[in-house]
Amino acid sequence: MLRNCRRPWLSLGSLRGIRCVTRRAPSLRREAGELVKPTTAGCVLPCRAAVAWEAGKPLVIEQVEVAPPQAMEVRMKVKYTSLCHTDLYFWEAKGQTPLFPRIFGHEAAGVVESVGEGVSDLAVGDHVLPVFTGECGECRHCQSEESNMCDLLRINTERGVMLSDGKTRFSINGSPINHFLGTSTFSEYTVVHAGCLAKINPLAPLDKVCILSCGISTGLGATLNVAKPKQGSSVAIFGLGAVGLAAAEGARIAGASRIIGVDLNPNRFEEAKKFGVTEFINPKDHDRPVEQVIAEMTNGGVDRSVECTGNINAMISAFECVHDGWGVAVLVGVPSKDAVFMTKPINVLNERTLKGTFFGNYKPRSDLPSVVDMYMNKKLELDKFITHRLPFSDINKAFDLMVKGESLRCIISMED
Amino acid sequence: MLRNCRRPWLSLGSLRGIRCVTRRAPSLRREAGELVKPTTAGCVLPCRAAVAWEAGKPLVIEQVEVAPPQAMEVRMKVKYTSLCHTDLYFWEAKGQTPLFPRIFGHEAAGVVESVGEGVSDLAVGDHVLPVFTGECGECRHCQSEESNMCDLLRINTERGVMLSDGKTRFSINGSPINHFLGTSTFSEYTVVHAGCLAKINPLAPLDKVCILSCGISTGLGATLNVAKPKQGSSVAIFGLGAVGLAAAEGARIAGASRIIGVDLNPNRFEEAKKFGVTEFINPKDHDRPVEQVIAEMTNGGVDRSVECTGNINAMISAFECVHDGWGVAVLVGVPSKDAVFMTKPINVLNERTLKGTFFGNYKPRSDLPSVVDMYMNKKLELDKFITHRLPFSDINKAFDLMVKGESLRCIISMED
Repeated sequence: MLRNCRRPWLSLGSLRGIRCVTRRAPSLRREAGELVKPTTAGCVLPCRAAVAWEAGKPLVIEQVEVAPPQAMEVRMKVKYTSLCHTDLYFWEAKGQTPLFPRIFGHEAAGVVESVGEGVSDLAVGDHVLPVFTGECGECRHCQSEESNMCDLLRINTERGVMLSDGKTRFSINGSPINHFLGTSTFSEYTVVHAGCLAKINPLAPLDKVCILSCGISTGLGATLNVAKPKQGSSVAIFGLGAVGLAAAEGARIAGASRIIGVDLNPNRFEEAKKFGVTEFINPKDHDRPVEQVIAEMTNGGVDRSVECTGNINAMISAFECVHDGWGVAVLVGVPSKDAVFMTKPINVLNERTLKGTFFGNYKPRSDLPSVVDMYMNKKLELDKFITHRLPFSDINKAFDLMVKGESLRCIISMED
Repeated sequence: MLRNCRRPWLSLGSLRGIRCVTRRAPSLRREAGELVKPTTAGCVLPCRAAVAWEAGKPLVIEQVEVAPPQAMEVRMKVKYTSLCHTDLYFWEAKGQTPLFPRIFGHEAAGVVESVGEGVSDLAVGDHVLPVFTGECGECRHCQSEESNMCDLLRINTERGVMLSDGKTRFSINGSPINHFLGTSTFSEYTVVHAGCLAKINPLAPLDKVCILSCGISTGLGATLNVAKPKQGSSVAIFGLGAVGLAAAEGARIAGASRIIGVDLNPNRFEEAKKFGVTEFINPKDHDRPVEQVIAEMTNGGVDRSVECTGNINAMISAFECVHDGWGVAVLVGVPSKDAVFMTKPINVLNERTLKGTFFGNYKPRSDLPSVVDMYMNKKLELDKFITHRLPFSDINKAFDLMVKGESLRCIISMED
């Protein structure tokens, strides 16, 4: 019905970037004696979004229309978004079915603008982190203490529409624009399933904690929730990008005494020191396998390892470099579809453990608020991950920085 | 010195099967008013042992001489021994360096006859289970809560001598006979490192708890200590021999509601029901992989699996049949040296866990006494594992039964 009620745009100076189209123009009103902003709930909201029209081509800032949230959905105002390798990977669309036009973006923070029917635990104004995977609360995975791989809202990289009706909430002149990971945060407003939104401490600075919505939580949780290194233990981290450095941050928080970073790029070491990395191995510097180098350095192997590259050989080395008897290797990085993990069974039988993790085993809604609080309590350091800041209009520069490997996390301010 | 003090055998009717050679004949003596048996400590003890002279040839009951225990060693009177596949495997000597003549046997129970210098926590008369692997108490593995793979006393299948001096304690007419796994329990007396002996409840019937010295603890611990199924969960057991059935027994004790047995031999199912197995899969009955059959039966996979065959394809299936999000697969069976474990990384990344175990992760000295107590408290059932009993003189029949797959555990009474 709302789709049929378009009227000429009404610009509301007090609502920067928001214009509402509805039967009646939103008007200022009083509530408990306070002058409150007009609600935009139920309206189709026009706003700016960075649209990817073609694989690998620069995004174009367009005026899009964002439909109101349907049942169990939330429309949020994105305040800050950052760029993650997954955006880059699907934007490049090498090796997957391309799905364009599409609005990318999944690492972000914002504020609830309106909620759809049945949404009871989120309200207008709540501060939220959108997550590329969700928590319905009812499936076997959500009921299990051990899993965060919700049956209903598990990541789906190929879906460009909302779950409830198989339609998009984004359009330009009536033509649909595809969603990405159910989040599409490269837009001033986006619609997200309520099960994919974590309600967080409203005092948390959104321009910092936005990076907890994907990569940093993934690496941090891989160490804290899955590898679980003990105080004084040794941990090897394969890959010193943002996820690997977050895994190192987890090892630092857990009190690991040796954090061995493995990366092919020697420039990474200086930066990695800030994240608690104590030693560095460049596999190119050795004529023997890196697991052997690590075994020599550590009297038989590290206590824990976390693999964040997705390179299949690194995955195997990460497993084989842990100590027999108690070593635990955690795989985070996603390899190519053809890769095969291979190892001699004795490496397993000698009491090594191999585990995989997805989003650091965090349940998005249940667990992310406490990760935000870890930052608020100064236990978790986030500022060191943020290497760049850009206004939304310069979003393509963030892609350039990531392609060149120059940034860890680049925060994009949607209001600039 | 004792080696030079041989005298003609003195037969002591009161010490059945024991004859002592020393400078002075052992004599009856009084202690606190009680007439006590003469000590044989320090003597070379002649006794019966089943000697394997050649690979795959029937054992020969011979009169052997057992030297006294050296520092940190214990000489024990073996009361009952049973036969395990590992004895059979090394007796057949296919695929390993043959080491003959040798006294096999490692699953047993007995009584301490004498202790060597430095042994403070075991005394004459203590009831003990010898174990093929040990617990020095001091190495990194023994200090770790997570490992039982003692650096000093870890299983060594190729060593035929004692650790301290590189010599055997067994001889026939001065010619050394090799030890096996540091236990060699197919002998009325044997010498074992004190770190490989678990002191157990003296009330426990040795003709039953002897089977806890290897296979049954291995399977039981794989489930209870490593897979750790929750009450009401589903568990798949690959291989329904004694180890697999012990794994099923562990699942029963843990309160698993579905225990799915996988074996190529359909005759195993009836017996397996006694061990709590609720469903049976013969992979030969299906035209698709067993992990797929299990996924269909269980809405996506079992919660836990335990692999007890050592067949590499079964190992891979055991991993791939566990549910994503929380599934844990535990490998127990030892495959051939050339085998390679292969799986798609996504099977790991989807939050599955692969673990290996050795002797069910039990620390021999610290943990076995409590396993014996589990039997004494009627929590653990052992009688159903014991399918045959034979006198020592018929030990070759026990080999026949095992080769034909007719026995689970055959108890050999050393005194018959």
